[in-house]
Amino acid sequence: MDIKELALQKHYEWKGKIEVKATVPVNSREELSLAYTPGVAEPCLVIEKDPSKSYELTRRHNLVAVVTDGTAVLGLGDIGPEAAMPVMEGKCALFKAFADMDAFPICVDSKDPDEIVETVRLISKSFGGINLEDISAPRCFEIERRLKECCDIPVFHDDQHGTAIIAAAAMQNALKVVGKRLKDATVVINGAGAAGIAIGKLLLQLSVGSLILCDKEGAVYEGAEWLNPAQKEMAAVTNRERKQGTLADVLKGADAFIGVSRPGLVTREMVSSMAKDPVVFAMANPIPEIMPDEAKAGGAAVVGTGRSDYPNQINNVLAFPGIFKGALAVRARDITEGMKVAASKALADFVPADKLCDSYILPEAFEPGVADAVAKAVAAAAKAEGIARI
Amino acid sequence: MDIKELALQKHYEWKGKIEVKATVPVNSREELSLAYTPGVAEPCLVIEKDPSKSYELTRRHNLVAVVTDGTAVLGLGDIGPEAAMPVMEGKCALFKAFADMDAFPICVDSKDPDEIVETVRLISKSFGGINLEDISAPRCFEIERRLKECCDIPVFHDDQHGTAIIAAAAMQNALKVVGKRLKDATVVINGAGAAGIAIGKLLLQLSVGSLILCDKEGAVYEGAEWLNPAQKEMAAVTNRERKQGTLADVLKGADAFIGVSRPGLVTREMVSSMAKDPVVFAMANPIPEIMPDEAKAGGAAVVGTGRSDYPNQINNVLAFPGIFKGALAVRARDITEGMKVAASKALADFVPADKLCDSYILPEAFEPGVADAVAKAVAAAAKAEGIARI
Repeated sequence: MDIKELALQKHYEWKGKIEVKATVPVNSREELSLAYTPGVAEPCLVIEKDPSKSYELTRRHNLVAVVTDGTAVLGLGDIGPEAAMPVMEGKCALFKAFADMDAFPICVDSKDPDEIVETVRLISKSFGGINLEDISAPRCFEIERRLKECCDIPVFHDDQHGTAIIAAAAMQNALKVVGKRLKDATVVINGAGAAGIAIGKLLLQLSVGSLILCDKEGAVYEGAEWLNPAQKEMAAVTNRERKQGTLADVLKGADAFIGVSRPGLVTREMVSSMAKDPVVFAMANPIPEIMPDEAKAGGAAVVGTGRSDYPNQINNVLAFPGIFKGALAVRARDITEGMKVAASKALADFVPADKLCDSYILPEAFEPGVADAVAKAVAAAAKAEGIARI
Repeated sequence: MDIKELALQKHYEWKGKIEVKATVPVNSREELSLAYTPGVAEPCLVIEKDPSKSYELTRRHNLVAVVTDGTAVLGLGDIGPEAAMPVMEGKCALFKAFADMDAFPICVDSKDPDEIVETVRLISKSFGGINLEDISAPRCFEIERRLKECCDIPVFHDDQHGTAIIAAAAMQNALKVVGKRLKDATVVINGAGAAGIAIGKLLLQLSVGSLILCDKEGAVYEGAEWLNPAQKEMAAVTNRERKQGTLADVLKGADAFIGVSRPGLVTREMVSSMAKDPVVFAMANPIPEIMPDEAKAGGAAVVGTGRSDYPNQINNVLAFPGIFKGALAVRARDITEGMKVAASKALADFVPADKLCDSYILPEAFEPGVADAVAKAVAAAAKAEGIARI
């Protein structure tokens, strides 16, 4: 039985991948009178006087909503709220397994950013954080920006920032392996959508030497006619030489390639045209922009993909559990650029210097301690930035 | 330590009363590839083709949202969304303990019925049913009615209908104890708010002989100037003799009293003025309209309250877990009057004829089998009415 059939069969057996458990006993009148009426009135009154007590007296301190509108689910596109649920339940299961966070899936039945923002805002006081998931671009930019403004809890679009944090961590370590420094490196990102732009922004935060984004029409440069607003913003701070041309054109002489685009767009020859010992992250899923063997044959010194069957998997599960664990641990108001930088550095530093090599630039997904290390760095950054509430 | 202090201390220890658990293993790459990417794409595609498969492939089949706006929480009034959460978490714990249902609390940060309806509608495809809780009257009527219209899943305001189902079950059995029939009995309900009106409607469904509602201004009668829309509707189908006057006036000669009002409104003398062997349900909480000893002294043959320290506790936990279990078992589109009647009769019938007496007219909260008996009756009624989808 192949994985598709087996996964479907398992889902029919499981009938859901999460469960809501009671953590308190309600098996006698006495127990009921403490957990429910009449005793429950007391914590209610304490929270009414001071709403921040909701973090001490309810599950809010550990609870994340995993929110989607079902418009960009995996590689499947716009499949709607019900069909998105297996992915959201899976994500919640990962929150629990990797960071002991309670996460609950909410699939919103609307594609209108106004409605989505309003819905999430109105339920946000039931949660400690909001993980946005699989929302199509460019809607995801506006939805996240507006939710960050109107909610008093951390909001984080994992497809953008989770991916960025891990790709940036991997890039820091890959460049160490080839003896280069990020501040001297030229990095080309192919795919100027939500993930590509988020990766670009984080690399800028990390002081990358030179950065060029590419999309279907070629290099993103200031003044290009075809840019959408998010790309236009990036055009003003990247590609300062205003290079034009195809991906093949701008890859010539580059130190690193990051693909968040489509299968097979990069050839062995294109890799060969890059600077010495190039880094190639071909993250299209499940089939990368170039297969690792091809990239190596073209001279790539370090290769990463989104796949678990090759070394250097760039896997979001390395970041989001620890990000939220850290942010909620100090009741951060937001997840800032500084917290993302801290998470990325913590992930890179998790790989011991004596083990760092071309096939080990990131921790493995199941390495113990990753989420805690990320959480610690994120919490410290939140405190340093003054947005922690405890 | 009194119960208030102890309950508060426990809530600080518990830090929340529910937890979201993963029910599937995600401890290896292989497990991850089944529960999450890439395997999860298959159940997504199956649901995209047929959204009803969401009941087989996700937790929806067993999942209820417990929704409030925090405007009428316990006896505390409008305390807001954060402060309502301890009650909602407690309710979710009861769903689990009494019927193994997964229930998740959502406190909506709005008092505007339009916003509340829209928010719940937009998240409703993530759930199998909606339990509305502690929403103030008359807003609760409109919110429930509109949600029933726009959602394709059962919507049930427990403060109205749960209370009604249990009070009606208790009334059926209490009248048996005193050798009267509901269709011959005159019942007076004091408190013409959400609960009182719901009890009245259900008693009418059960063919009560004569029914009079009272509120602060006295008996509800057709043509009274002070009626709100919900009371006006009831005035057209109750009190056909158009009796006017105070509660004391209309209680004279009545067979039964149901109070969902305020402490101490009923005196021993008022009970004495009722028909022979009167039934008195004094459900104001925590202090009833008349204390059981006083009611007995006035001649009451059967007395019920909302309290656990007296016999015949009229306790919502007897109904809502089984109602939702039954409705979701057959994927009912709605919870209808017929399903409420069935639940009420099932609860009444749960008390064996040979044990029925003035101090045992309802099952105890912790008697095993109650939720299943209610669920069975509710599911059968849904099927009989043609609103079951399986």
